This record gives sequence, C-alpha cells and structure tokens, in this order.
Amino acid sequence: MSGKLYLIPITLGESSIESVIPTEVIESTIKTRHFIVENIRTTRRYLRLLDKGFPIDDTQFYELNKRTTPEQISGYLKPLEEGFNVGVVSEAGVPGVADPGAAVVELAHQNNIQVIPFVGPSSILMSVMASGLNGQNFAFNGYLPIKSGERVKHLKHLEKRSIQERQSQLFIETPYRNGAMIDDILNHCLNSTKLCIACDITLENEFIKTDTVQNWKKNKPNINKRPAIFIIQG
Amino acid sequence: MSGKLYLIPITLGESSIESVIPTEVIESTIKTRHFIVENIRTTRRYLRLLDKGFPIDDTQFYELNKRTTPEQISGYLKPLEEGFNVGVVSEAGVPGVADPGAAVVELAHQNNIQVIPFVGPSSILMSVMASGLNGQNFAFNGYLPIKSGERVKHLKHLEKRSIQERQSQLFIETPYRNGAMIDDILNHCLNSTKLCIACDITLENEFIKTDTVQNWKKNKPNINKRPAIFIIQG
Repeated sequence: MSGKLYLIPITLGESSIESVIPTEVIESTIKTRHFIVENIRTTRRYLRLLDKGFPIDDTQFYELNKRTTPEQISGYLKPLEEGFNVGVVSEAGVPGVADPGAAVVELAHQNNIQVIPFVGPSSILMSVMASGLNGQNFAFNGYLPIKSGERVKHLKHLEKRSIQERQSQLFIETPYRNGAMIDDILNHCLNSTKLCIACDITLENEFIKTDTVQNWKKNKPNINKRPAIFIIQG
Repeated sequence: MSGKLYLIPITLGESSIESVIPTEVIESTIKTRHFIVENIRTTRRYLRLLDKGFPIDDTQFYELNKRTTPEQISGYLKPLEEGFNVGVVSEAGVPGVADPGAAVVELAHQNNIQVIPFVGPSSILMSVMASGLNGQNFAFNGYLPIKSGERVKHLKHLEKRSIQERQSQLFIETPYRNGAMIDDILNHCLNSTKLCIACDITLENEFIKTDTVQNWKKNKPNINKRPAIFIIQG
C-alpha cells in the first residue's frame, strides 16, 4: 500500500489557527512525518504551534522551490512508495495554488499516488468570495509584468476581457510595489471599472473593499507592504 | 455600529464537519441569527448538525436565488443597519463563488458594510490544488454551453487559451451530463492535453485524477451523477 500525498494548508500569517484550519486537518498534519516544503523554518514553526511536542527531529523535510529539479522531486516521493504519507506545505495558505507545489502533485498523478487536498485559507478564493464581483467566472493571473509600460498594456487587456467575457480578473503584486500597482490601475482603467482590493486576509487588519475606479481615485488606500489581491471587472 | 456580513461555508455533502470547517467558523456560525441562504432547508439542517439545540425558531432566513430582486436583497441587509451580523450561506461550499451570493456582497460594499469571508471547502480551489496543473494561472469558466456543437467549440477555445496563455481552464457540468462532457473532451481535445477530473471532493468517494486525453481514452471513468470539476491544460 503506497502512502497518500496530503496537500496541507497553513495560516496566512499571524492568525489564530482554529479560525482557518479545521480540527481534522490539524490532526492529520501532526501525524505526518514527511513534508515537502517551500520553507523549512516556516513549516517547523507552524508544526510546533499546532503541537508543542511535535517530534521535529524524527521528521523529514524536503525543500521545494524554483531550483528544485524533477529528479529531486522524484526522490521526495520515495517515502510514499514505502507506505508513508507525505505532506506538501506552502509558504502561506494552500499548496498547489500560486506556489511551486503543483510540480510535486503532477508527479504524484504520474505515479498513481492518491492526492488529498485539505481545507485551509486561500487569499485568492477568499477575495473572490468577498469581492461581490463575478464568482461564476473568474481568472487568477498571478503576477503582471513588472515594467510599467507592459503592465499597463496587460491591465488594459485584462479589463477588456473582463468586459467581453464577464470574467473577473485577479492578480497579485509584490507587497512593496502595491502603491505603483494601484496608481497604474487608477490611471489607466475605466472610471466605471470595479476594483476590489483585498489585503491581510484572515489577519487582524483584514481590509476588503470593492468600489469603482472613479471612487477609489477620491480615496486612495495605502496598503504598502501588505499582502494583497487585486480584482478588476469592467 | 452596523453588523458584519459573514460569508459562511458549509460542507460539500455528507462529510464530517470537523474535516472541512474550522472550529472558530463553527462558533461564529452558531452565534448568527440572520441568514441569507440559497436553500432554507439545507441551511436549517446544517445549523442543527452544528448545534443540536440551535434556536431555529428565533432565527431569520432570507431566500436568495436567481429570482430574488435587488429590492429584496436590499431589505435583507436591514438587520445589518440594526447592528446584527448576517450570514450568507450557499447550497454547498463557500458563498460568492459559483452561486448567487455575489449580489448580496456587492450591495454590502455599496453600503460600506464590512464583509468577512470564512474558510471552508471549495471544490474549485481544492481541484486546482490537487490537479498538479497550473495553479499560478487558472480560470474558472462555470458551465459551458449545453448544445454539443457550441460546447465543443467552446472546449476548443479553452484548450487553445490554455496553451497560448499557460492558463489552466476549469469548468463544471450538471452531474447527470458528466458522461457527455467527458465524451466531448476525449473526442475533441488534443491527445497531449491534460485533463483533471475531480469529483466528490471531501466526500468518502473522492476521486481526483489527472492524465492525458490519450490515456483517459483507454480508461474512461464513469462519474455519472457525481458532482465534478473538470480542468484542462494543453
């Protein structure tokens, strides 16, 4: 019997664990002894928060990032063949979405390993829920181009698509560039386009607000260095 | 002080509640006495599962469906002005995604009411996590056209986009039509295109598998009448 690949969520920051992680997910997490992780320190710290006595020293951690090779990932799946469950843990939120986790999952499917996703916080999903924008048709576009000219072009393309296809368009930015992103949206999108800014989701300072570009211009938020999701819908 | 609009998740079927709903979300849910719901019976039943002694008779339920008018929704927000928290509850999973909940949230933003999304199970998010397909860029397209000719055309359009933009494409189908949908995908998508079929997510018979169209053809699954998410990536 081969083990199962657990997709294990983690908090989005300093939130209470019981507010975002179901009890049985906590239980399955602390029974696991093999973890493929984006950040070993973050994962160790989280495991100790779940269970003060978590046996870190009896646990294997395998690092997953952009530089991890397919051969290394293949090696990470060995414990599954030996019957152990292996957890995939992201830097924050759920693995496999906006992180490198999908590479592990892809290989698991190729090897007929059962993949089990657990429930946890996702800033992407929660921002769609709380935006009031179209949740029946939406796209997550990851990061937009960094250079302002290209970014504006891409923003206009997404705005156009949101109008033509009634598909709301999500994207993210490195937190210290949030200000520049908001400027680009307010300067180049239509006044009638709706913009949802969702930041610090599930945290104490959670801020989620949808308004028109026109209204945002009168009341520009400062969310510098706060993790944020942007959604536009023309 | 106005109340808050809680976006309250519910199980995706007969799963254990503790496996998919965080403890503090359960606590906030059973403290709420005003609910805007897609299905009153489902919500009542769920509340009684959370708390056998839940005071159903002291609780207000407001029905939300395609026929609910903006004026009615506006009335549903009255308790918020009076300082009561109001919960939005979908038929299954999280509200505001693939359901009519967004209309309430939109109006809440227009009235400066704080909107708080809670963590819970979403078959859309969980299928992206567990697919191994691109989770850095994906689109949820809801239902495809029902007529086979139009549907095939749309399928090919989504496949093309998934190749050109490296954006994985999610869609759903009414469960009793799953067989016809799988036939259309296998007959009209490229052999090299990857297809994830994710059904009964979080339930006992959960089935999640990603493979190429070519391999699926040799081993066609029967998922008739089971709720499913389809994801393609060319």
